[in-house]
Amino acid sequence: MQKNLNTNPSANPSTNLNTTAPTPSSNSEQSAINAIRASFLHFIEDPAQLDNAQEAYQYIEDGLMVIENGKIKSLQAFEQKNADLCESVEDQRGKLIMPGFIDTHIHYPQTEMIAAYGAQLLEWLETYTFPTEKQFSDKEYAQKISEFFIHELLKNGTTSALVFGTVHPESVDALFEEAQKIDMRLIAGKVMMDRNAPDYLLDTAQSSYDQSKVLIEKWHNKGRLQYAITPRFAPTSTAEQLQFAGQLKAEYPDVYVQTHLSENIDEINWVKSLFPERAGYFDVYQHYGLTGNKSIFAHSIHLTENEWQAMSETDSVIAFCPTSNLFLGSGLFDLEKADKNNIRVGLATDVGGGTSFSQLQSLSEAYKIMQLQGKKLSVFKGLYLATLGSARSLSLDHKIGNFVTGKEADFVALNWAATDLQKLRLKNSNNLQDKLFALMMLGDERNVEATYVAGKLVYSAV
Amino acid sequence: MQKNLNTNPSANPSTNLNTTAPTPSSNSEQSAINAIRASFLHFIEDPAQLDNAQEAYQYIEDGLMVIENGKIKSLQAFEQKNADLCESVEDQRGKLIMPGFIDTHIHYPQTEMIAAYGAQLLEWLETYTFPTEKQFSDKEYAQKISEFFIHELLKNGTTSALVFGTVHPESVDALFEEAQKIDMRLIAGKVMMDRNAPDYLLDTAQSSYDQSKVLIEKWHNKGRLQYAITPRFAPTSTAEQLQFAGQLKAEYPDVYVQTHLSENIDEINWVKSLFPERAGYFDVYQHYGLTGNKSIFAHSIHLTENEWQAMSETDSVIAFCPTSNLFLGSGLFDLEKADKNNIRVGLATDVGGGTSFSQLQSLSEAYKIMQLQGKKLSVFKGLYLATLGSARSLSLDHKIGNFVTGKEADFVALNWAATDLQKLRLKNSNNLQDKLFALMMLGDERNVEATYVAGKLVYSAV
Repeated sequence: MQKNLNTNPSANPSTNLNTTAPTPSSNSEQSAINAIRASFLHFIEDPAQLDNAQEAYQYIEDGLMVIENGKIKSLQAFEQKNADLCESVEDQRGKLIMPGFIDTHIHYPQTEMIAAYGAQLLEWLETYTFPTEKQFSDKEYAQKISEFFIHELLKNGTTSALVFGTVHPESVDALFEEAQKIDMRLIAGKVMMDRNAPDYLLDTAQSSYDQSKVLIEKWHNKGRLQYAITPRFAPTSTAEQLQFAGQLKAEYPDVYVQTHLSENIDEINWVKSLFPERAGYFDVYQHYGLTGNKSIFAHSIHLTENEWQAMSETDSVIAFCPTSNLFLGSGLFDLEKADKNNIRVGLATDVGGGTSFSQLQSLSEAYKIMQLQGKKLSVFKGLYLATLGSARSLSLDHKIGNFVTGKEADFVALNWAATDLQKLRLKNSNNLQDKLFALMMLGDERNVEATYVAGKLVYSAV
Repeated sequence: MQKNLNTNPSANPSTNLNTTAPTPSSNSEQSAINAIRASFLHFIEDPAQLDNAQEAYQYIEDGLMVIENGKIKSLQAFEQKNADLCESVEDQRGKLIMPGFIDTHIHYPQTEMIAAYGAQLLEWLETYTFPTEKQFSDKEYAQKISEFFIHELLKNGTTSALVFGTVHPESVDALFEEAQKIDMRLIAGKVMMDRNAPDYLLDTAQSSYDQSKVLIEKWHNKGRLQYAITPRFAPTSTAEQLQFAGQLKAEYPDVYVQTHLSENIDEINWVKSLFPERAGYFDVYQHYGLTGNKSIFAHSIHLTENEWQAMSETDSVIAFCPTSNLFLGSGLFDLEKADKNNIRVGLATDVGGGTSFSQLQSLSEAYKIMQLQGKKLSVFKGLYLATLGSARSLSLDHKIGNFVTGKEADFVALNWAATDLQKLRLKNSNNLQDKLFALMMLGDERNVEATYVAGKLVYSAV
């Protein structure tokens, strides 16, 4: 039996996820699907690591993906006899289904201040960011923005993210509560910040430790939620606070660390003046036990040779934030160098320093960043980065990132062409690589037809 | 009497402009308007040339613009008694009306190959551009793309453009015929190219002269249409062809010249090897009489000090192409340096090297290009560039570019917020500058509600 998404109202939740999305415990069958028929693209390997990029991905023009208990049971070429075994088959022929996009660095409280005019990083923080973040001491406000934020992620086909809250524990509670409603895989943390910011946004070394600990106990590994220890960046933490952060990481080694690194030249010089006893910016984090294979450093644009090596040796991770790096004029990240050093890299929007929630837009700007360096970003490497690459960067590739049997069924159904211009461009395209490239360069949230989390429809454009 | 655009079907042409837009000779009153009520923004001066940028523009929150015979009769704060004098008043309250955007460099035959994956300029031309342009020897094909192209301009709020055809005269006939249907102010020319391209795209020095001359006689100053002598760029013209081009310019001094200059380092080196007797790239054009106040040089990124000076002395013009410069990795244009040298600069999409028809998107990327250089682009300077600045660059500021009485009534009605994210951002905005900046950074064709040419509605989103 085939079921068409667009004509079945029960499969089409309103845009208010609060009231219609099933809670994870409900096991509601309402918007669960058994199988879906469409074109499928997912990655098995990093195209940049293979001589033949075509071996990195699987593309099935007419495929059938079967889902059981929110996980991938199988993906193969469509055959009627297999479809007949399913309770229902949703027909998305003509659409491209990919693993949900993963955003490895984003500040949800900055949603409302996206694209704020300013100078570069430090002035921008003072002028826009801090006053905006102040509002998140109000739990109700945090709830409102959390709801908007998660809807915006889903609307852009993003099904997992590593997220900064504000200094307020309430901000993280609100976000996790919202993600929990749809059983979304989300990692977040309360900002630790005890100096060089307005008083109204400061915690203390002790309170940041205490509050983070409570949040870890409350949320880490609760369903699909996980916690990240979140010192904003070295300049806004005292040595004492970083020490507490390191202590937390030692107590909870499975928990993530997320922070910023070497985004901007003035920032780097500031860190040097604040921590003259350390060898450099990365060494500050290293010294306090905050590096490692679950530590994600946003930006990492202006690394020294020693820092590239230290990142590699500690298996630390970089979040590459293309739209933000251009918008704040931070510089051009060297993706090839990270690859050569075997450093895992995730893709990130960095909203509100970034200018779009769309990972297609992130890739479009990533391509431009590479071009300015005389390098290339193939569409396969790009789409790998947005899915399996980012899953690997978060050490979550055993759970998400592609359609291997047993993975969690987070995915996005994309329209190949959402505008007249895209349609004309597509007509002049005669191979998969070129079609995907046009989608990456011209695409945005208009190309997202539907988004599924744990096998359930959580966003539909129609 | 007030008339609402959205509810009056006769004011709402179908998207097929061919069949519904009035011809310039018809003087149809069907979609002509007498007055329009909205918020208005237009520029009187270049904000970068004034100590106080606020003196560069006029903003009227609730204004009434009266139009007579396709021209601006008046623009002032709304008063009922003035409205009562008008035959009809279109109510666009809540919308922002600006002068139509002007695109000073675009290749209409490349519409269908926008965002083609490749290396930098020269390889990109060979792989994608030339095969695509081949099709424009077929007049019917050229008509089809012309219709699409002009609709795409209007959809993006662009009401005037300086356009490259292909080497085929038919391509220019088709485009002018299409523009003529809506009395659009358009400048275009047939590409002159007699070497270093596939045989099927080459003319000869003599034929390029003859064909261009016929086109000038046929189209230049026919209604609002004007002609541009169009040697593609120095590498694809022999000295003989450039000499013929210069001869044409001497015979028709009022005609424009459009070409490319110093977009890419390899290109510059190639020009040096092809014209070793010349002092540099710009000097090639200079030598053949192709520089001057109606000569528009796209890109001009990598100019030498001598070239900056020569451009200034000859009053030559630069078309700044932000999305293209990033997409092809050409480099970062130095807008401030052009200003310091008193060189006129127009804004351009450079589709298909550019990735968007939207001048809002061009400005968003222009801002990023400035940021990467540690410089700022204010939203006022940006919107000036897209309107009056580009009109000045084309020596058309006595005709278009702002709402001074007597100017041609080309304008665009913009939505302040077209997406949920823009709406949230707008709510957090408390001054005009910030509202406009958010529009510039986040906006695209979705923000274009309606476009008017010579006082008539030629595009409506609803």
